Amino acid sequence: MTKLKWGMIGGGEGSQIGPAHRLGAQADGLFEFVAGALDHRPEQGRDYARRLGIAADRAYGDWKEMLAGERDRPDRVDLVTVATPNATHFEITKAFLQAGFNVLCEKPMTMTVDEGEEIVRVARASGKVCAVNYCYSAYPMVRQARAMVRAGEIGKVRLVVTNFSHGHHGNAADADNPRVRWRYDPAMAGVSGQFADCGIHALHMASFVCDDQVKSLSADFASTIPSRVLEDDAMVNFRMAGGTVGRLWTSSVAIGRQHGFDLQVFGETGGLRWASEQPNQLIYTPVGGRTQIIEKGEGGLHDDARRLSRVAIAHPEGFPLAVANIYCDLADAIRGTARDGLPGAADGLRSMAAVHAAVKSAGQNGAWVDARPPMFR
Amino acid sequence: MTKLKWGMIGGGEGSQIGPAHRLGAQADGLFEFVAGALDHRPEQGRDYARRLGIAADRAYGDWKEMLAGERDRPDRVDLVTVATPNATHFEITKAFLQAGFNVLCEKPMTMTVDEGEEIVRVARASGKVCAVNYCYSAYPMVRQARAMVRAGEIGKVRLVVTNFSHGHHGNAADADNPRVRWRYDPAMAGVSGQFADCGIHALHMASFVCDDQVKSLSADFASTIPSRVLEDDAMVNFRMAGGTVGRLWTSSVAIGRQHGFDLQVFGETGGLRWASEQPNQLIYTPVGGRTQIIEKGEGGLHDDARRLSRVAIAHPEGFPLAVANIYCDLADAIRGTARDGLPGAADGLRSMAAVHAAVKSAGQNGAWVDARPPMFR
Amino acid sequence: MTKLKWGMIGGGEGSQIGPAHRLGAQADGLFEFVAGALDHRPEQGRDYARRLGIAADRAYGDWKEMLAGERDRPDRVDLVTVATPNATHFEITKAFLQAGFNVLCEKPMTMTVDEGEEIVRVARASGKVCAVNYCYSAYPMVRQARAMVRAGEIGKVRLVVTNFSHGHHGNAADADNPRVRWRYDPAMAGVSGQFADCGIHALHMASFVCDDQVKSLSADFASTIPSRVLEDDAMVNFRMAGGTVGRLWTSSVAIGRQHGFDLQVFGETGGLRWASEQPNQLIYTPVGGRTQIIEKGEGGLHDDARRLSRVAIAHPEGFPLAVANIYCDLADAIRGTARDGLPGAADGLRSMAAVHAAVKSAGQNGAWVDARPPMFR
Amino acid sequence: MTKLKWGMIGGGEGSQIGPAHRLGAQADGLFEFVAGALDHRPEQGRDYARRLGIAADRAYGDWKEMLAGERDRPDRVDLVTVATPNATHFEITKAFLQAGFNVLCEKPMTMTVDEGEEIVRVARASGKVCAVNYCYSAYPMVRQARAMVRAGEIGKVRLVVTNFSHGHHGNAADADNPRVRWRYDPAMAGVSGQFADCGIHALHMASFVCDDQVKSLSADFASTIPSRVLEDDAMVNFRMAGGTVGRLWTSSVAIGRQHGFDLQVFGETGGLRWASEQPNQLIYTPVGGRTQIIEKGEGGLHDDARRLSRVAIAHPEGFPLAVANIYCDLADAIRGTARDGLPGAADGLRSMAAVHAAVKSAGQNGAWVDARPPMFR
Repeated sequence: MTKLKWGMIGGGEGSQIGPAHRLGAQADGLFEFVAGALDHRPEQGRDYARRLGIAADRAYGDWKEMLAGERDRPDRVDLVTVATPNATHFEITKAFLQAGFNVLCEKPMTMTVDEGEEIVRVARASGKVCAVNYCYSAYPMVRQARAMVRAGEIGKVRLVVTNFSHGHHGNAADADNPRVRWRYDPAMAGVSGQFADCGIHALHMASFVCDDQVKSLSADFASTIPSRVLEDDAMVNFRMAGGTVGRLWTSSVAIGRQHGFDLQVFGETGGLRWASEQPNQLIYTPVGGRTQIIEKGEGGLHDDARRLSRVAIAHPEGFPLAVANIYCDLADAIRGTARDGLPGAADGLRSMAAVHAAVKSAGQNGAWVDARPPMFR
Repeated sequence: MTKLKWGMIGGGEGSQIGPAHRLGAQADGLFEFVAGALDHRPEQGRDYARRLGIAADRAYGDWKEMLAGERDRPDRVDLVTVATPNATHFEITKAFLQAGFNVLCEKPMTMTVDEGEEIVRVARASGKVCAVNYCYSAYPMVRQARAMVRAGEIGKVRLVVTNFSHGHHGNAADADNPRVRWRYDPAMAGVSGQFADCGIHALHMASFVCDDQVKSLSADFASTIPSRVLEDDAMVNFRMAGGTVGRLWTSSVAIGRQHGFDLQVFGETGGLRWASEQPNQLIYTPVGGRTQIIEKGEGGLHDDARRLSRVAIAHPEGFPLAVANIYCDLADAIRGTARDGLPGAADGLRSMAAVHAAVKSAGQNGAWVDARPPMFR
Repeated sequence: MTKLKWGMIGGGEGSQIGPAHRLGAQADGLFEFVAGALDHRPEQGRDYARRLGIAADRAYGDWKEMLAGERDRPDRVDLVTVATPNATHFEITKAFLQAGFNVLCEKPMTMTVDEGEEIVRVARASGKVCAVNYCYSAYPMVRQARAMVRAGEIGKVRLVVTNFSHGHHGNAADADNPRVRWRYDPAMAGVSGQFADCGIHALHMASFVCDDQVKSLSADFASTIPSRVLEDDAMVNFRMAGGTVGRLWTSSVAIGRQHGFDLQVFGETGGLRWASEQPNQLIYTPVGGRTQIIEKGEGGLHDDARRLSRVAIAHPEGFPLAVANIYCDLADAIRGTARDGLPGAADGLRSMAAVHAAVKSAGQNGAWVDARPPMFR
Repeated sequence: MTKLKWGMIGGGEGSQIGPAHRLGAQADGLFEFVAGALDHRPEQGRDYARRLGIAADRAYGDWKEMLAGERDRPDRVDLVTVATPNATHFEITKAFLQAGFNVLCEKPMTMTVDEGEEIVRVARASGKVCAVNYCYSAYPMVRQARAMVRAGEIGKVRLVVTNFSHGHHGNAADADNPRVRWRYDPAMAGVSGQFADCGIHALHMASFVCDDQVKSLSADFASTIPSRVLEDDAMVNFRMAGGTVGRLWTSSVAIGRQHGFDLQVFGETGGLRWASEQPNQLIYTPVGGRTQIIEKGEGGLHDDARRLSRVAIAHPEGFPLAVANIYCDLADAIRGTARDGLPGAADGLRSMAAVHAAVKSAGQNGAWVDARPPMFR
C-alpha cells in the first residue's frame, strides 16, 4: 500500500506538539511527511522543514503559501494537520476544507460556537474528513470501554465521573512565565483557561465512552492564583441527553498530580475505570462481583481495542501511539473505511459549546445552562 | 493506670458498629466494658451484654434504664458511647450529658441544626467531653496531614478535593433490601441519603485537615436509581472561611469502588494526598519537586501521628485502630489532657448545618447557600 | 463468656513486641491481662506491670518467680506469652508447658533443632496448646489463600515465590547501633542473621498456604555490609514434599523496601498474590482468565477468612489485628475448638531445621541439603 | 537530515517482532524502510515486502539474495535488522558484518559461546556497528537508573535483584501449541528455555544499570510442567566483577504475572526500583530518607533519559518507543556519534556465556561456575 502524503501547519522547532504529530503520522508507516508550514516565522519554518527532509519547494513560509502551493499539485497532500496557535485553527481548517483537503485540527477546533458551526457545515459540504485531535479517545482501552458500554456490558449508564488535573501551573512564581501566563489571559486564551485547555478532553471522553452527548451543565470556576483572570480550577456538573449524571473536575494547581486524567463510568450492571497514567489497563467490576483487570492485548477484546494496539499483552503503549491511532483511523477514513471512533467537527463544535456554556454558568453562580450548540438542539 | 469504665448504647448482636467500638475501646487497655443497653429489644440486649461479660445488674434493657442505673453509682461509667439509630442520637446524647456523663456519639450527632445547637450548648454547660465519631480523622497519617498544613508545610491552602464513593448500593435489585432501602427513605434517613451518610465524613476531614470551616456551598444531588427519594450521588462545591475552594463527590452507586474515601489538599507550596484504602501512607509533593511517600512510623513525623500509631513502619494499622485512636484521645480528654484532634459537638453541628444547606441548594438548582450553623455565623 | 486469663513474659516498657501482644490479646475482649514478668530487670518489670493494671502479687520479677507464683493458683493464667530474647524461648516455653500452661512463644521457638524437637515432645506430652507467633499467617486473606489452595482452586501448586525484604539495616553507619548490630553477631543471634529473623516468616507462610512442607533447600548467603559476620541478604531455593518448587529472597539492605513481605503461589489452574503492605486484598488469576481482586469482607470467602475479620469490605485491618487473630485461635483452642490454622510447635521446629539447613548449604556453596527435622524425616 | 536506509530480515506477516522493528525504525523519521527478506517462504516474503511499500527489486526471497542484491548498490542499506529464528542469527549477522553492513541482531545473538566470540571478532574487524536488541535498556528511566549509579548517587552497589516472570506458558493444555512448545524443546530452542528467552533480558539489564559484569553464577532450573525438557522456571544467583550480589528469577508459569520484568538495585546510600509495566517512573530511596518518584520528563534528569523521551512528564511512552530508542542510538552510532548505551556484540556474547554457565550449574545441583566468556576472562 502506498503511503499517504501528509503536511503540517505549525509544530515548529521546539514545540511539543510537532514531534507528537510527526511520530503519530509516521510510526505505522501510513503517511509520508512531504509538506509543511511549520513556523510563524517564514524562514525558520522553511529551514526546519528542509532539515526534516521536506523538499525545498514544499517547505512553505506560511499556511496561505502552503494552500496555494499544494492546491494544484497532482501529488498534493492527502492530509493537513493544523497545529498552530488556537485562535488560528478556524481560519486555516476552513480554508483547507474548502480547497478539498482532509484536515486534522488540534483542539480547540475554534474559539466560538459560531465558528464551530461553520466548520461543521463546511466539512459536510466538502465531503472531506475533518477530524479533531482528541487523541486520548484513541487509547485501545478507551475504545474497549466505549465498546463495552455500547454492547450493554455495564447496562444503562447512570453516572460518569472524570478528572483532568495536574499541578504544573501551581507555582505562583511562574505567573510571569509566558509559557504559563497566556493560558489565563483572555486576550490570548479566550473565555476559559483550564477548562478549555484540559477539561474538554475529559468532557469529550465522557461523551465518547458513554456514547451520549452533554445536554446541560453547571460550572464552578476558581482562579486560585489571584493574579489570573481565567480559571485554573473548575468543577462542572452535567447531564447527558440520555439522563446520565456527569461530574468533571479539572485543575492546573493540583500540585503532585502529574497527568491526572481519569474516567469512571458507572452503569446499572457494572463499573469501569481508566487512568491516563496507566493507560493499558481497564478496571471492570460487574455489580455484585469482583473487580477485574482488563489488559490491552488480552484475548477477546472488542475490535477497536484489538485493532489499535501493536505489541503483546502488558507491553505498554503510550501517548504517542494514541496519537498514532488517530492517524490510523484517518488513513482508513481517507481511503474510505469510515471509523466512527475518529473524533470529528461535530465533536469540536460540542466542546466549544460546552466551554461557552460553562463560562456562562460560572458567571451566574452555577446556574444550569444548555450546553448544546444551537444546530444540535 | 486504672482502666476507665465504659458503657455502650446500641451496637447489638449482628451490628457492624458494635464490634468496632468494643475493639476501639478495649484494644489499648484503656477502657473496661462494664455496662450496656445494646439492643432495642430489652431481653436480647440484656442477654447479649451478659454474654459479653457485663455484670447482670449493668446489662440494661434500654437507655433510660441505663441512665437511671448508672447515674448514682459510685463506680459509674466514665464514658457512654451512643451507637443507636440516627434519629435517637440527640435525645440520648443530651440526656447523658445533662446527667454529667462524657459521651461519644456516632455520626450524625443529630437530625436537625436546632438539635445540633442544643447539644453544643448542653455540652458546654455540662463541662463534659462530647465527642463525635469522625474516626477517619484519627488515622495517624490524617493527623500528619493536618499538622503539616498547620505548620505551613504546603503554604496557604488553595484547594481541597475529597471523595467518599462506593458501589455497595448500586444494585437496583437491592432496592427492597431493608438494610439498603432505609437510607434513601426520608421517613427513616431524614433529609439526605448518601451525603448525610458518607459525605459528611469527607466534609469533616476536609475541614479537619485544612484547619478551617466550610462557609458556603452549592450542591447537585441525583437519585440515579429512580425509586429512591433521597440522593445516592452528590457533588458539593464549597468555600471555606479562609477562601479555600472545596470539591466533594460522594456516591453509593460507584460500582467497583469499595471504600473510595480519599482526600487531596493543594496549597501554595505543596500538595498532599491520602486514601482510606491505603491509610498508612501520605503522599506529599513540594511545588516543583518530586513526589514523596510519607510512611506511618517513619522518623520525624509530627507528634499526633507518632503518638497514635502502635507498630513499626509499614506494618499496617487499619480502621478499627483509627476508632481506637478516638478512644485514646477520649481517655486523655477525660483525664484532663485536652486533645484538639478529637472531633466534638461543634463538628457534629457543622455537619448537620452542611447537610441541610446542601439539601436546600440542591433543591434550588445548585444555588450557593450559607453552610454555617446560625450560632457560628 | 468469661475472659481467659493471660500473662506475658518479656515485652517490657519500650519494646515493640509488648504492645502488639497486649493489643492482640485484648482487642477482641477474649483475654484479661492478669500477670507478667515483663523485664529482665526485676524492679522495672514489676513496676511496669503494676502501671499496666496488674495486681501487685502477679507483677513478677522474672519468669521463674512467675512460674512459681502461678502454678498453684486456682485462678492461674490460661495462657502465657513468651516474648523474651530469642535464646531464652526454649527454656521458658518448656518449663511452662511442663507445668501445664498453654503457651504462645515468639519466633524463633528455639535456637537449635534438638531443642525444637524437645519442645514438640514436651508439648505433646503436656496435652497443652503450644503455639508460635507466625502472625502473618493469620491475616484473613492469607487464610483465604490457604483455603483456596486446599480446595483445589488453583490446582496442584507448581511454584511458590516469597520475599521478605526491607532496607532498615542498610545504613553502614548504623553498624555500631546495638539495636541493629546484635542480629549479625553469632554470639547473640545464633547461626543466622536475616534468614532467621525474617526469612522464616516467609518460609512458614509458603508452607502454610501451600499446605505442604519444605523437604530440601539450597542457600546463598551474603553479608553485603562487610563488617557483619552473619548474612544480611539470603536467597533460598527449596523443594516441598509434594514437589512444589520454592524461591525465597530475604534482605535487610534493600533500601526503599519498607516491609517487603509478599507471597506468590502458582498452580496448574491459577495464581495467587498477596503483599503484607496491602494485606486486605488477595490477587487471583485463573489460568487463561483475567486477574481478579479478592477483598477481605466480600461475600463468599472461605470460613477462616470470614471468621477472622471484624469490619466491612475495604475497611483495612492491619498487623496488630493479625496478631489478635492468633489470640482468637488460641482462645478457641484453649476452650477445645481446634484451629488448624494456629501455628504450633511443629512449625517452630521446622523453621529451626530450615535455618540450620540453610546455614549448612550456604557454607557448602549452595549444596542441596535436607531441610526437615530428623523427627519428621 | 536525510533518512538512513534500512532493511530487515525476518519479521514477516503475522510476526510480533516485525511491527515492533518497523515502528521502532520509522517512528522518529530516522530510517526509511527500503529492503527486506521478510519470510522463510520466498514468495510470501517478497509479496509482503511489496505491500509494505518496498520496491520490487529490493523485496528479496531470502537473506542470501538480499546480501547479494544490496552489497554492490550505491544506495545500499545503512542498517540491517536480523529478526529471524534464533538459530540463524549467527550466520546472517556474521555475513552482513563481513560485507560491511551495520547490523541490529535480535537476541539471542548466537546459540553458542564460540559463535558469540566469533561475532565479537568479526564486528571488531569490520569497524561496523553490531548491536543486539536489549531494548528494555533503552527505556528513559532505565537509562536514568544507569546514569544515577554511574554518578554514585546510590553509592557502591551491594545488591541487584531482578525478575522476568510471566504466566503465558502456564497452561499445560497448551503443551502441544507449537507457538509455545518449541521454547522447551532442545531441538529448536537450544540448551535453555525460559532463562534464554527472558532471563537474559533481566541479566543484561542488571549488568547495564550496575555498569558491571557477571563473573560467576549458580542456577536452579525447574520444568514445572513435566512434559517439558527445558526449564520453564529458573533462579540464578550471581556475583559481579565488582562484588555486587545478584538474584534473578524468571518464570513462564507465573499465572497472573503479565509482563513481570522488574529491577531493584541497592547501594550503600540508596535504592532504585523500576518495573516494565510502569516504565515511566523510577522509584528512588536515599538511605534514611523518603521514597521519591522520579518521573520521565521531570526537570534535571540525566542526559540519556532526557534525550530518549519525546513527550511531556507523565505522558506515558511504552515498549515500541523503547525499541525506537535503540534505533535512535543506532542512527547516531552509524553517523559517528558513539552511544555507549547501545547494547553490542560483547553484550550478546556475555548473555550466551551466562546461558551456558547456568545450564552447566543447574546440571551440577547449583554449583557455582564461571559465567564469563573465555575471551573476557
